[in-house]
Amino acid sequence: MKVATVGLLLVALCACSKRTFTTPPGKGGGEVTWVGALVSAEHRIMGDIMTYGFPSHGMLLYREGYVCSYDTRTRVPHWVAERLNTQRLRRGAKRTRRFRIDSELNPEFRSQSNDFVGTEYVRGRLAAASNHLGDAVALEQTYYLSNVAPQIGEAFRQSFWVHFEAQTREWARQADDLYVFTGTLFLPEEGADGKSYVRYEVIGANQVAVPTHFFKVMLRERDGRREMQAFIVPHRPLETDAPLEPFLVRVDDVERAAGLDFFDELTEPTQSMLEARNPGTVWGASVPAGESPGGN
Amino acid sequence: MKVATVGLLLVALCACSKRTFTTPPGKGGGEVTWVGALVSAEHRIMGDIMTYGFPSHGMLLYREGYVCSYDTRTRVPHWVAERLNTQRLRRGAKRTRRFRIDSELNPEFRSQSNDFVGTEYVRGRLAAASNHLGDAVALEQTYYLSNVAPQIGEAFRQSFWVHFEAQTREWARQADDLYVFTGTLFLPEEGADGKSYVRYEVIGANQVAVPTHFFKVMLRERDGRREMQAFIVPHRPLETDAPLEPFLVRVDDVERAAGLDFFDELTEPTQSMLEARNPGTVWGASVPAGESPGGN
Repeated sequence: MKVATVGLLLVALCACSKRTFTTPPGKGGGEVTWVGALVSAEHRIMGDIMTYGFPSHGMLLYREGYVCSYDTRTRVPHWVAERLNTQRLRRGAKRTRRFRIDSELNPEFRSQSNDFVGTEYVRGRLAAASNHLGDAVALEQTYYLSNVAPQIGEAFRQSFWVHFEAQTREWARQADDLYVFTGTLFLPEEGADGKSYVRYEVIGANQVAVPTHFFKVMLRERDGRREMQAFIVPHRPLETDAPLEPFLVRVDDVERAAGLDFFDELTEPTQSMLEARNPGTVWGASVPAGESPGGN
Repeated sequence: MKVATVGLLLVALCACSKRTFTTPPGKGGGEVTWVGALVSAEHRIMGDIMTYGFPSHGMLLYREGYVCSYDTRTRVPHWVAERLNTQRLRRGAKRTRRFRIDSELNPEFRSQSNDFVGTEYVRGRLAAASNHLGDAVALEQTYYLSNVAPQIGEAFRQSFWVHFEAQTREWARQADDLYVFTGTLFLPEEGADGKSYVRYEVIGANQVAVPTHFFKVMLRERDGRREMQAFIVPHRPLETDAPLEPFLVRVDDVERAAGLDFFDELTEPTQSMLEARNPGTVWGASVPAGESPGGN
């Protein structure tokens, strides 16, 4: 599944084109030939058709503790990526508990706290604050509204989801590194007419989409071994201690539902093998006594 | 509205990073410093968190006659961009009328003709074949299924839409160049409970999304002057000669609905002025006698 990489590389090279195809200041322009040779056909078509700019279909936001692929259409993240380990999960920073508008985003494409007022949804951070208590900047940045999707409050986020996040941190502590993608899904259901429909609520003046499901895709490294685990969780009331097994899926299932290709830097055999593996049981699943489930 | 450009540039530089941060073959590595200086923080975060790859949120497809931003989640284009002019609209090439799977796309993310079987929808090319009758390769490439969204057949595509496309070509013939973005929208409606919901059908094994609306955004150049015109058309039965005025919108309206920023290479004052202008009347609107409305 390297195909998507090629696409992203093309986005990359072509979005750069107006910049990199001119000679960088103080350079001999050697790069021009190098990049140009790779994408000459694309560059020619770009120059012909895309004269007045290239409408982006998303934004990438780089934070100290996470990377966010923000969907400008739904006003929620496609995914948020984190790398969790004992080092990052150390404590120390103080929470401010203040959400903030993300000024990196075009005002037309971002959510605001007002959008949530009068709804049944809270501002659910996809990169949890409790994952970043070791670094004040990283912690602050979890409060950007670009890291937020609407989540049912008491009956989902404050119960099941914070427990699930605490469990994820526990998996991270047992590993050398845990790479986690947390994201939003909009999945179809069968309608009364037997056809399939995607249906989701949008809230507020900015029409922020309420996901039908959330996913987590994880890669665990431990003693040089790699394992994957993936979940698709329906966005509906769930008990705090609801078992995780019913939500276990193959990584391939998330990829297909989300239109995403994870871990494409792994070799193809490794990737295929790990991503297609049928989920068996959830990794050793106990929330440590020391962690308060209210701490998300 | 330059914010999205920055994001795309970041996608660009970071997606390149594994390649451009190594020294290109035979070069002194001058580019490394140049790019590195621009994105050092992002690069550091990338290296830390995104070790195993970067899930793309779309694909860019370069064709002789159009550029397509393909949405891997909905399996239809976000948009297709064309530059139409008298030169491109000349005739000569022969149609084959054979749709083809796009092998550039990951099999998990692409539509197939089978998805349309037994539905009320036809394979609606967003870059119309009749826009590319001057070049055999360009014409062939309009038949890729990546250029397709489901459209109601007789009551929409074969009536209103082909007429609208013919009108668009007429605007191109009256201009020096007409830059056109044609794309898909998924817009909310009020539900019985007074809340807003997005609802759309998905068809076939690949769950191809049926857009609720289509848009066209146009920039016309004529004698050194630039004008814009934009439409949002509901995807429902429409008469061949349905007037276009009710579908006229500001470019800003499409941007907000689609999460896209058009024409960001224009200077900010020009862009703001042209995109915020309230639509008055449709550009001189007559389909030429010589063009068959069945020819889309």
